[in-house]
Amino acid sequence: MMNRDVADLPSGPLDVYRKKASFSWKDMVRFIDGEDVYLFKQHVFRTLENDPLFARQPGEDVPIEKKRELNFLSTVIHVEEVSTARFDDFTEGVQAYEEQWGESISLEFVINSPDFEAAKFWVGNLGKTATHAVVYAQLYTPDQVCHGLHSFVVPLRDPKTLLALPGVLVGDMGKKLGQNGLDNGDPKKRFGASLGALSGGRVYITRMALINLKLALTVAIRFSAARRQFGPTDTEEIPVLEYQLQQWRLIPYLAAAYALENFTKSILMNFVEFQIGQMLKDNSDTAGMGREIHAIGCSSKPLGSWTAQRGIQECREACGGHGYLAMNRLGDLRDDNDPNCTYEGDNNVLLQQTSSYLLSWLHAKQRDGVRIESPFHTVDFLEESQEILKSRFTALTVDDCVDSAVPLAAYKWLVCFLLEESQKKLEQERASGNDDFEARNNCQVYYCRSLAMAYIEHTCLQRFHELTTNQDTPAGLRPVLRKLCALYGLWSLSSHMATLYQGSYWSGRKPAELVQMAILTLCSQLKDDAVALVDVLAPTDFILNSPIGCADGQIYNHLWSTVMQGSKVLERPSWWKEFCSDKPVLGSLRPKL
Amino acid sequence: MMNRDVADLPSGPLDVYRKKASFSWKDMVRFIDGEDVYLFKQHVFRTLENDPLFARQPGEDVPIEKKRELNFLSTVIHVEEVSTARFDDFTEGVQAYEEQWGESISLEFVINSPDFEAAKFWVGNLGKTATHAVVYAQLYTPDQVCHGLHSFVVPLRDPKTLLALPGVLVGDMGKKLGQNGLDNGDPKKRFGASLGALSGGRVYITRMALINLKLALTVAIRFSAARRQFGPTDTEEIPVLEYQLQQWRLIPYLAAAYALENFTKSILMNFVEFQIGQMLKDNSDTAGMGREIHAIGCSSKPLGSWTAQRGIQECREACGGHGYLAMNRLGDLRDDNDPNCTYEGDNNVLLQQTSSYLLSWLHAKQRDGVRIESPFHTVDFLEESQEILKSRFTALTVDDCVDSAVPLAAYKWLVCFLLEESQKKLEQERASGNDDFEARNNCQVYYCRSLAMAYIEHTCLQRFHELTTNQDTPAGLRPVLRKLCALYGLWSLSSHMATLYQGSYWSGRKPAELVQMAILTLCSQLKDDAVALVDVLAPTDFILNSPIGCADGQIYNHLWSTVMQGSKVLERPSWWKEFCSDKPVLGSLRPKL
Repeated sequence: MMNRDVADLPSGPLDVYRKKASFSWKDMVRFIDGEDVYLFKQHVFRTLENDPLFARQPGEDVPIEKKRELNFLSTVIHVEEVSTARFDDFTEGVQAYEEQWGESISLEFVINSPDFEAAKFWVGNLGKTATHAVVYAQLYTPDQVCHGLHSFVVPLRDPKTLLALPGVLVGDMGKKLGQNGLDNGDPKKRFGASLGALSGGRVYITRMALINLKLALTVAIRFSAARRQFGPTDTEEIPVLEYQLQQWRLIPYLAAAYALENFTKSILMNFVEFQIGQMLKDNSDTAGMGREIHAIGCSSKPLGSWTAQRGIQECREACGGHGYLAMNRLGDLRDDNDPNCTYEGDNNVLLQQTSSYLLSWLHAKQRDGVRIESPFHTVDFLEESQEILKSRFTALTVDDCVDSAVPLAAYKWLVCFLLEESQKKLEQERASGNDDFEARNNCQVYYCRSLAMAYIEHTCLQRFHELTTNQDTPAGLRPVLRKLCALYGLWSLSSHMATLYQGSYWSGRKPAELVQMAILTLCSQLKDDAVALVDVLAPTDFILNSPIGCADGQIYNHLWSTVMQGSKVLERPSWWKEFCSDKPVLGSLRPKL
Repeated sequence: MMNRDVADLPSGPLDVYRKKASFSWKDMVRFIDGEDVYLFKQHVFRTLENDPLFARQPGEDVPIEKKRELNFLSTVIHVEEVSTARFDDFTEGVQAYEEQWGESISLEFVINSPDFEAAKFWVGNLGKTATHAVVYAQLYTPDQVCHGLHSFVVPLRDPKTLLALPGVLVGDMGKKLGQNGLDNGDPKKRFGASLGALSGGRVYITRMALINLKLALTVAIRFSAARRQFGPTDTEEIPVLEYQLQQWRLIPYLAAAYALENFTKSILMNFVEFQIGQMLKDNSDTAGMGREIHAIGCSSKPLGSWTAQRGIQECREACGGHGYLAMNRLGDLRDDNDPNCTYEGDNNVLLQQTSSYLLSWLHAKQRDGVRIESPFHTVDFLEESQEILKSRFTALTVDDCVDSAVPLAAYKWLVCFLLEESQKKLEQERASGNDDFEARNNCQVYYCRSLAMAYIEHTCLQRFHELTTNQDTPAGLRPVLRKLCALYGLWSLSSHMATLYQGSYWSGRKPAELVQMAILTLCSQLKDDAVALVDVLAPTDFILNSPIGCADGQIYNHLWSTVMQGSKVLERPSWWKEFCSDKPVLGSLRPKL
C-alpha cells in the first residue's frame, strides 16, 4: 500500500501550491510507477537512509580516493542486500573463467599492445580494483597469419593483494569532471566493440540522463515556489514561480521530463522485445528490430542527454546564487550528466546512424517499391510522405494550438521535409564529384543532423500523445498529462520554426505567434500543478540531499543549518598566522622617490 | 620587442595548419594587444612561471582550504610585485577608516540584523579573512525616525588573530561549483546596492567570461587539429578539424571570441569616458552616458557569459572523453564561468533594464518628438526605424552573403521590429486591464528579452564591422577579420531566423538556405586559420595548463606524462585490504532453498 500522501508531505511554504494542484499526486505515482515499483523504491530508500554509509553532508569536499572507497563499500552493500543471487552467479563465473584461463595460459596466447596509442582509457573500475578484463585483440598465429578479432579473459591483478601482475601496466587516469566514485583505468589493450550490442547501453543512458533532469527540476521548482522576490506592491513579495519568465525557463523542462519518462520506458520495452526475439529465434523480424532499436538508441541518447544538460543548466541559473552553491547539488548533477553526451558514442556522431537508417528506408522504397513499415512503427508514417508534405498548418487560435495533435502533425511534415532535403543534398554532393565519405560529411549540418533529431522528437511526442489519449489512462490524470504533452510538443517544435517557414508549412506572422502564446498559456496553466508534478518524480529528502529542494520548502532553515554544520565554518583558516604576520609596516612600501 | 614567433612555437602536428594560415600571427598579436600589453603579459607570465607557488599539476584534487591558502599567497605576491603603490594606498586607507571608526563607535551606532533572512551571503573574502566590511543599513535615531540607507565601516575580526569580534557572526558558506579560491561569507547584515555603480562590474564580467571562452577554444581547436579519427580510406585518418561538423561546432565560437575581444574593449572605453565625464563635471552628457552604459552592461554580461557558457560546453563535448578529464581544464573553465550568468544580476532579469531603455527612447520620440541619438551611438539607427522596417533581405547568392554588411542590415531590421512589437504587446497588456507590474512581466518572453539580446548582438556586430572596414586596420589582417565578422554576424543571426520570416524580412526557401550555406563556407575557409587564430589568443602552456591544449599539439605525450605523474596512479587504493578480505565463500550466498 502506498503510505505516502499529500497529507504526509511536510507542511510549509509549498502547501499553497499543493492544494491548488488539479490532480491526485497519489494517482499519478500509481500510474507512472505502479504499486510494485513504488514499494520497491521505498524499500531501497529506507535501506539507504538506515545506513550511515549513505549519509552525506550536502556539498562536502570529498577527496577522490575517499569517493571511490565509499563507492566500493556501497556497491558491496548493494550487491549483498539487493541481489545476492546475482553476486553468487558472478562469483561462480569468475571462478569458471579463472579455471579456464589457468589452462589457457599454458596453451592459447601472448597479449601485446603495439604502441602507446593502443592503450585503452575509460575502462570502468579498472584503474584501481578490477582483477580481470575481457580484452579484444587480433589473433596472430606463429605463421604471422591474422585470424581477426578474438576476445580473451586476461588476469590483471593478484586478487589477494590487488598488485598488478608482471607485464601489466594498469592505473588511474585522473580526476574527471564528475562520476568520481567510478575509477577508470588503462590496461594498454585496444578494445574493439560490437556496435549492435551497444543499443541497450544507449537506451539505458537515455534513462540515466532523465534521472538527473528529474532531480534538478525537483530542486529548482520547489525553490521557485518557496523563494519570494519583488511583487506588485512594495510590501508584498511573490514566489518567483509566479513570474512568466521563470515559468518559461522551467516548466517546459518539466513537460520534457514527463515525455521522457514515458519514452524511455517504452524504448526499453522495445529493446527487451528485440532481445527476446533473438533468444527465441522465432519468426519475429529480429534483424529489422535490431536496426530500428539501433536508430532509436543513437538518437534517444542525444535527445535525453542534451535535454538534461540544458535543463540542469537552466535549473542552476534559475536558482541564482543558491544554485551555484555545491551543497544544493545542481553542479554535481550537471557534471554527472555530462558524460552521457559522450560515452557509447559522441551525440553528434551517433545521429548519423539514425539519419542513415531513415535514408535507407526512403532509398528502398524508391528503388524497390518497399512498403515503409518497421517492427516498432517509428517510421510507418513515412509511407504517406507525399500527402504529408502537402499538408499545412491550420490552427487559427491559441485554443486550437493547446493540443498535442498540432505539434504532432507539424513534426510529421518536418521529418518528411528534412528526409527529402537530406536525400537531395546527398545526391547534389555526389553529383558534384565528391566521394561517398566527403558527400556524407557535407550533409550533416542542417540536414542529416536535424533530420535525426526531428525523428526522435517526433517518436517521443507520438508515444506521449498516445498515452494521453489512451482510454486506459486514468481520466483524472488525462487533463494534466494532455497539457504536458502539448507543451512538450510545441516547445520542442519551436526550435524548428525557421524550417517550418522555409518549407512553407508555415507562412505569415500568425503561426509563430500562436505557438508562442500557446506555450506561455500552458506554462501558466501548469504552474499550480508544478510542485505536485515534481513531488511525483522526487525521491525522499535524504536521497535528494539538497537544502533548497526539501519537500517542506523551508529553504532558509535548511540552508542555514547546512552552512552552520559545514566543516570548520566558523574556524579561522589553518594558515591564519601567515595572514596576520609579515604585514608591511605602514609606509614601508611607499615608492622610494 | 616581440620575441615569440611562429618559428618559436614548438614543432609538432599543428605545424601543417600554422603553415597554411592566411595571415601573420605576429601582426595579429600586435594589432590586438599592442606592443606594451603584449610585453606586460609576457612579463606576468614569466613571473608566474618562475614561482613554484603557481605550478599546478593539471587536474589535481586540491581541498578547498588549500585552494584558499594558495589564492591568498598568490594574491600577496601579486600585490607585492605588481602594485606596491596601490597596496600602500590601501593600507593607509584602512588606517584612516580605523581612526575614523574608533571615534564613531563611541558616538554615532548599533548595527542590528532584524532576522535570519537579512543575512548577507556571497561577500567576497568575508568568509575567512576580511577584517572590515562596509555595511549598508537603515539609520534609526533614538526617536525611532528612519533616516534611510547609510553606509558604515564595521570591524569584523581582530586583525591580529582573525577571530570574529563579539556580536559578529561571520563564516564560510560552503563549497561552490567553481571559484573556490575565493571565500564568500555572511556577516548577517543586509546590503543595499547602488545600481548605477554596478555598470563597471558588468562590463568587466563580460570580459572575464571572454577569457574563459578563449582558453577553452585554445584547448578544443588545438586538440581538433592534432586528433585524427577515421578518413576517406581505411588506412588514412584525418584531423577531426577537417570534418564539417567539427568546424561548425567550434569555429563560430572562435569568431564570437574575436567579436567579443573587440567589443569588450570598446565598452570598457565607453565606461572610462563616462567616469571621466563625471569627474570633470564638464558639459558632456554624463546622465545620458550613465543610462546608456547601464543598458549596455545589462545586456553585454548576458551576451558574454552565455556565449562563453555554451562555447565551453561545446568545446568540452567536441573533445570527447578527453574533454571530460579534469586535467584538461574544460570543467574548471565551465565552473568558473558559471557565476558570470548570476552575479551582479541574473542575466534574464538584467535584460529587462536594457529593453526598458530602448522602449523609453521610442516613447520619448513618439510623445515629445525627441531625436534618437545617444552618447555612444548604440541607438542612433532607431531614428530611421520607419525606413528600416520597410527594407527586405536582398542577397541572391552565397557570395553575396559572405559579408558582414548582410547580417548587419538584418540586425537593424530585427531590432526595429522587436522594439515595435514589444511596445505593441505592452500596450495590449495594459489595455486588457493589467497593472504596470503584470503588464511588464507578461512582455518579457519572446518580446523584451529578444529585443535586448538583438540590440546587444547588433552593437557587438556593428563595432566589429567598423573595425574590419577601418583603413587603420592592417591590410594583411583585414581579410581574415572580415571572414570572422561575417561568420559571427550570420551565426548569431541564425538564432533569429523565425522572427525574420515572421515579420516578412525573409520569405521563401532561399534566405535561410543562403545564410546556412554561407556559415558552412566561412567555417571551411577559416579552418586553416583556426590554429593561428587561437595561437594569438592563447597564453603560454604553463598558464593554459591543459595537456591536450599544448602549443606543440603532442596530445598523447602530454596526456601520458600527466597521467603517470598523477598522485598514486599505480598504487593500490589505501582500502585494498577491505576489498580483498571478507569475500563471500563460493556458494555461501546461494539462496537457502
